Amino acid sequence: MNLRVPGPTPVPEDIRAAGAQQMINHRGPEFAELINSVHSGLQHIFQTKQEVSILTASGTGAMEAAVVNSFSPGDKVLSISIGVFGNRFAQIAEIYGAEIVKPTIPYGSAADPELIKNELEKNPSIKGVLVTHNETSTGVTNDIKSIAKVVKSFDKLLLVDAISSLGCIPLPTDEWNCDVVISGSQKGFMVPPGLAFGVQSDAALSASKTATMPRFYFDFERHTSYYHRGQTPWTPAVSIFYGLDLALKKMLNEGLANIFTRHEKTATKVRSAVKEIGLKLFAEDEQSASNTVTSVRIPESVDAKRLLGLLRTEHNIVLAGGQADLDGKIFRIGHLGYVEEKEIDEVIEKLKVVLPEVGF
Amino acid sequence: MNLRVPGPTPVPEDIRAAGAQQMINHRGPEFAELINSVHSGLQHIFQTKQEVSILTASGTGAMEAAVVNSFSPGDKVLSISIGVFGNRFAQIAEIYGAEIVKPTIPYGSAADPELIKNELEKNPSIKGVLVTHNETSTGVTNDIKSIAKVVKSFDKLLLVDAISSLGCIPLPTDEWNCDVVISGSQKGFMVPPGLAFGVQSDAALSASKTATMPRFYFDFERHTSYYHRGQTPWTPAVSIFYGLDLALKKMLNEGLANIFTRHEKTATKVRSAVKEIGLKLFAEDEQSASNTVTSVRIPESVDAKRLLGLLRTEHNIVLAGGQADLDGKIFRIGHLGYVEEKEIDEVIEKLKVVLPEVGF
Repeated sequence: MNLRVPGPTPVPEDIRAAGAQQMINHRGPEFAELINSVHSGLQHIFQTKQEVSILTASGTGAMEAAVVNSFSPGDKVLSISIGVFGNRFAQIAEIYGAEIVKPTIPYGSAADPELIKNELEKNPSIKGVLVTHNETSTGVTNDIKSIAKVVKSFDKLLLVDAISSLGCIPLPTDEWNCDVVISGSQKGFMVPPGLAFGVQSDAALSASKTATMPRFYFDFERHTSYYHRGQTPWTPAVSIFYGLDLALKKMLNEGLANIFTRHEKTATKVRSAVKEIGLKLFAEDEQSASNTVTSVRIPESVDAKRLLGLLRTEHNIVLAGGQADLDGKIFRIGHLGYVEEKEIDEVIEKLKVVLPEVGF
Repeated sequence: MNLRVPGPTPVPEDIRAAGAQQMINHRGPEFAELINSVHSGLQHIFQTKQEVSILTASGTGAMEAAVVNSFSPGDKVLSISIGVFGNRFAQIAEIYGAEIVKPTIPYGSAADPELIKNELEKNPSIKGVLVTHNETSTGVTNDIKSIAKVVKSFDKLLLVDAISSLGCIPLPTDEWNCDVVISGSQKGFMVPPGLAFGVQSDAALSASKTATMPRFYFDFERHTSYYHRGQTPWTPAVSIFYGLDLALKKMLNEGLANIFTRHEKTATKVRSAVKEIGLKLFAEDEQSASNTVTSVRIPESVDAKRLLGLLRTEHNIVLAGGQADLDGKIFRIGHLGYVEEKEIDEVIEKLKVVLPEVGF
């Protein structure tokens, strides 16, 4: 099967085999060695000197962790949402009692740093900003470098959801002054889902000391304090640690810069091919189109369900549909983590076969 | 390595191989089939007709879920703690704003249902009771059947942590009227850690409608509503689902009654052998000694660290030490899930070799 959804990505055979190793005592020396190795690999991928909390959870768990470790109920928080996952970030903060300021940004667009500047000027009591680096639901990447400059010029906390971008699209956590950056194992890391990660800047660490949103399972401080003993506070997903350890070694071997270039090349190829077929990208501005997932508008004449159904049942190609309001309006091609050129070629080739069958 | 900690347990080779299967789309028909199969197996093991929420988390995540789906800040909650994990259950509730009533029960003892009756009589405003079925830190099993009778006679919610007992020691969720029962993948299920489970009775479901503790990732309702679409709300730990599916088939094949008998026999054997060596069980009353983990008092003449260290480095046997206040005072032998008679024989044999070397 050619699995081309934006995560979970296919997992290379050696990483799957690594995950099948026998269990060890998660409070013993073997696990301490494993977590140390994984931790230093993660620091490299996050491009950070800070400690990384490794949670046994989906990416959404890390989103919750980012919020509850940073804020108190009643805090005013600016949500910069450009899609479903941006909305989710805001919803979590709201459920935990934050007061959300949420300008409307049309789906398909990236966030304009000027808009963020205006909102921060209008609302001086804002404590922090939630932003999605790469919005998986629309296939749009935000310009975190510029956004961070604005947010930090107002001395606010910047929380970045990098679930579908980290290890694929550049995001130097420390250099760009991001305060909380989170990610998950099943995207750029080519590992099964089940582990999620969070990094806090010194400013975020300091904010967490007074943040009163309730937290236990997702308390970053419990994770970093146990990390010092070579452990996690709660029983970790050991098999996914095994896979991640090998995946990180492979990534470091390829080199971050090469990985970024590879993703850029693959994405450019996908976008060109899609346009050549006569389809339209959903990203308003191709400059902000994502290098990990390409969203394509479904022409009015085409039945989205039939298109994706035929690709799956007749050609073993699994693409993703649109989520929430975008259901039936777009389809999405994942090209992140473990992806080879021939798999992309196959998607394009079969799109050319199936599209005419469904009314294009 | 003979891994004899009380979880993660060793994982049979076929279950590890199952976990190494390639990823699938977690929003597609293959995953729907997988979650349906896992769900019906879990209902069998929980002995329930209720729906089971399947969380991507450690067992502690399910403890948090049990609390936040049941209570509101300010609710009075009775904590029946007989060890580290009972304390953790209470701590979570406290962090989320519950007012905790916590009678002291000495470590090594089970909870007396009479004590619970007295507390509920003294504190009529108590909304629910937290209890650990099998306290992993002390090796003691609570009599949930009797406790449930008392708690339900007062019409209070009963939340049961069955992380290290489910699928090993009888706990018929529906028949005994437990309101929330939680467990995890890495104990009786013989699967790597990373999935945790929660079941709610109708009373618990009704309580959750008015419970205001903040919840998003661990919101049971989001899980059951997505289960109806053959999905989980957040990206699930797919590889652990694969392993669990096979593990459940193996468990159903062996039969719950046979599994319970096997655990009882193994535990009886461990306890007899330990006493025969001249060591003392930590459980005050052998009737309440756990059938999944045996806690053994470390004689005063013996250095606990050396004992466990030599077993590990010289004989490849990994036992668990004591946690928190019990560090250095007990050691623990796990005998749950995937365990064979020869592994127990080896532990006993090597204890006989090493104990004299460390001053016994």
